[in-house]
Amino acid sequence: MGEKNLEIVQDQTATEPNGQISHLALDIGGSLIKSVYFCRSDSSGSGDDQDHECSANGGCAKKRPAIEGSLHFAKLETSKIDQCLETIKSMKLQFNGFVHQNNTIEDNTIKDTSFIKATGGGAHKFADLFKEKLGITLEKEDEMDCLVAGANFLLKAVRQEAFTYIDGVKEFVQIDHNDLYPYLLVNIGSGVSMIKVDGDGLFERVSGTSIGGGTFWGLGNLLTKCKSFDELLELSHRGNHRVIDMLVGDIYGGMDYSKVGLPSRAIASSFGKAISEDKELDDYKPEDIARSLLRMISNNIGQISYLNALRFGLKRIFFGGFFIRGQSYTMDTISVAVNFWSKGEAKAMFLRHEGFLGAMGAFVSYDKQRLDDLLAKESLQLQVRTSPPVDTDYQSPLNGESIENETINCIIHTA
Amino acid sequence: MGEKNLEIVQDQTATEPNGQISHLALDIGGSLIKSVYFCRSDSSGSGDDQDHECSANGGCAKKRPAIEGSLHFAKLETSKIDQCLETIKSMKLQFNGFVHQNNTIEDNTIKDTSFIKATGGGAHKFADLFKEKLGITLEKEDEMDCLVAGANFLLKAVRQEAFTYIDGVKEFVQIDHNDLYPYLLVNIGSGVSMIKVDGDGLFERVSGTSIGGGTFWGLGNLLTKCKSFDELLELSHRGNHRVIDMLVGDIYGGMDYSKVGLPSRAIASSFGKAISEDKELDDYKPEDIARSLLRMISNNIGQISYLNALRFGLKRIFFGGFFIRGQSYTMDTISVAVNFWSKGEAKAMFLRHEGFLGAMGAFVSYDKQRLDDLLAKESLQLQVRTSPPVDTDYQSPLNGESIENETINCIIHTA
Repeated sequence: MGEKNLEIVQDQTATEPNGQISHLALDIGGSLIKSVYFCRSDSSGSGDDQDHECSANGGCAKKRPAIEGSLHFAKLETSKIDQCLETIKSMKLQFNGFVHQNNTIEDNTIKDTSFIKATGGGAHKFADLFKEKLGITLEKEDEMDCLVAGANFLLKAVRQEAFTYIDGVKEFVQIDHNDLYPYLLVNIGSGVSMIKVDGDGLFERVSGTSIGGGTFWGLGNLLTKCKSFDELLELSHRGNHRVIDMLVGDIYGGMDYSKVGLPSRAIASSFGKAISEDKELDDYKPEDIARSLLRMISNNIGQISYLNALRFGLKRIFFGGFFIRGQSYTMDTISVAVNFWSKGEAKAMFLRHEGFLGAMGAFVSYDKQRLDDLLAKESLQLQVRTSPPVDTDYQSPLNGESIENETINCIIHTA
Repeated sequence: MGEKNLEIVQDQTATEPNGQISHLALDIGGSLIKSVYFCRSDSSGSGDDQDHECSANGGCAKKRPAIEGSLHFAKLETSKIDQCLETIKSMKLQFNGFVHQNNTIEDNTIKDTSFIKATGGGAHKFADLFKEKLGITLEKEDEMDCLVAGANFLLKAVRQEAFTYIDGVKEFVQIDHNDLYPYLLVNIGSGVSMIKVDGDGLFERVSGTSIGGGTFWGLGNLLTKCKSFDELLELSHRGNHRVIDMLVGDIYGGMDYSKVGLPSRAIASSFGKAISEDKELDDYKPEDIARSLLRMISNNIGQISYLNALRFGLKRIFFGGFFIRGQSYTMDTISVAVNFWSKGEAKAMFLRHEGFLGAMGAFVSYDKQRLDDLLAKESLQLQVRTSPPVDTDYQSPLNGESIENETINCIIHTA
């Protein structure tokens, strides 16, 4: 009873992983490689004092071996795939956990039959490279499967996973597991996928847009010479989008267009002021450009998300992916867009582990067969009950803090 | 019976207006001023041989004075408002037509009590300027009212007004006046308005996006140094968006992501390839940038339009505004987007006088009271029957040809 695969214990500030690393899972996207890996704690071992567990009816059984440790999160640019390979090589991955059926754990280091769970387009694109350079097989998991599995897992296992962000106020939302579905999952990576989720493994990709994180980064790179996504975000904090965007008031001589509910400060045309003949790129401040770009993209994603939520009668929209990064301006823009277009009917929610949904999904797929067994609703609820959600004083990494500095303590049961 | 205000006779290639110009109407937007004006032909006069018209039942009445002439279309950048004022001054506008009730036509030139019908935000913004410099009052008409009135008028009065554009094939669509409503009107100006139209004067602005013509022009200006919208469009013809956009195949190692129906050539992330650290703006061809930009914006407008059409069960979407300019690539992208997202359910249609909907609406508002009288359905149909739609061998101004080189011959009945 209460068969647990991955038991979440608590979050903590990350320390350099000093134990054995195992169960690495990768999500290799167009711009970023995201990874989730399990690191067993030094104290963790199979020598357990109590090697039997007893149920309420008095029956006892031999306890399954447990490894204590923590989940770590890391990312790297996809263009630095060679660095990724080097890092994995140096990790001396030890597969103590869910090993391939044809594999053994006698030799604790990588060998020819080793594999890593991987998702995202890069799991296909770089499969040969991993095999050639590391002798590792990338065991491909479908991208949407992983996004949904990762989101469902985190929403159920981590109490302070989802939060709203309205007018600068962040509020964690307690998810009732019996009332989680359906919801719209919007994953903002290089591009954007919108997925209607009806249950564990039950979903449909209903929409998407090519105007996503890659657009912010790509256009930002061309317009501001910022080389990194984080630098661009940092820049946008100081900007004023009104210098670049054409507002309703700019067209209407400072007035609202009240008949159709457009206030003078609403953006009529993103980058619409930049049509000026007298000005060139260098005449604009990079921070204003970055802010206008961030606003344009966030607002557009919020709007298309809302229209899709409306289409399927979904009241909750969870935004994930590596675009948001806990940025208050981005979240505020998305929240306002969803609230504005839905007239308050739909709610935008953000995920603390936003960027790692796919990688998390690939991670939990290590024990896919067992998870499949748990898909029966009763077992699933049991699983949830026996893995109490984490509840800490954790603060969301707004404006720059990174979830990569946090880990989740957990126990992996190995048999 | 059969009271006609504006009778469309035929289209013709524009000649320099050599007759008297009257009935100028302006649509002053964020980026462009659009105008429609009536120019009476030299031969036109009030000395009519037959000054009585007789109906079928034998009754005769004095014919209303008629002025023959043609409708002309012109545009100018809003930043050149002074040039606009000069042009209007030099036009020596003669108000032979629908004069203000408090006005007289004794003195055929502009005077203090003269007025021009105007719409768009600039009708508010520049009202004082027109009064001060020309002594002309801008009689403001609501922007959405005018867009809808203009679209309805053109769709009913000009047979070859609406057309589809699919796989490079343009096909005029004959609009059944009894089956015109409801439809979605998407006006792509600096920004984009989406209006559900249910009848003459019956409409609601249901959505919009700030990513419109001003975004193409503004971002294009910053990225390519092209100063004019037309130059940018011209540039985009020669471009290859695949150099800048991240395709599904770029992420998936050349493969489709077939499970969710994304072919390898689909754009995963607009401008997603421009995240490269090694390249700067100057390393990309301006034509590739312009094309990627055009594709991104057209596709986004097509998608949001479709989602709104779906929301209200509208099968027909008419695209107007000065963004499209008969560009085959733009129309093709919008058509493909609407077709792709609606799985063939909704149809994108384009309008020959796309850029002049608002100005046309302001023009027909010169006789608003009479038009209001015609709003009763019976009278409206009568109006349509007595103004036979134009049917010519007109070719749509694809890729560069301008509707401004065309005029519509018509007769204005003045009393």
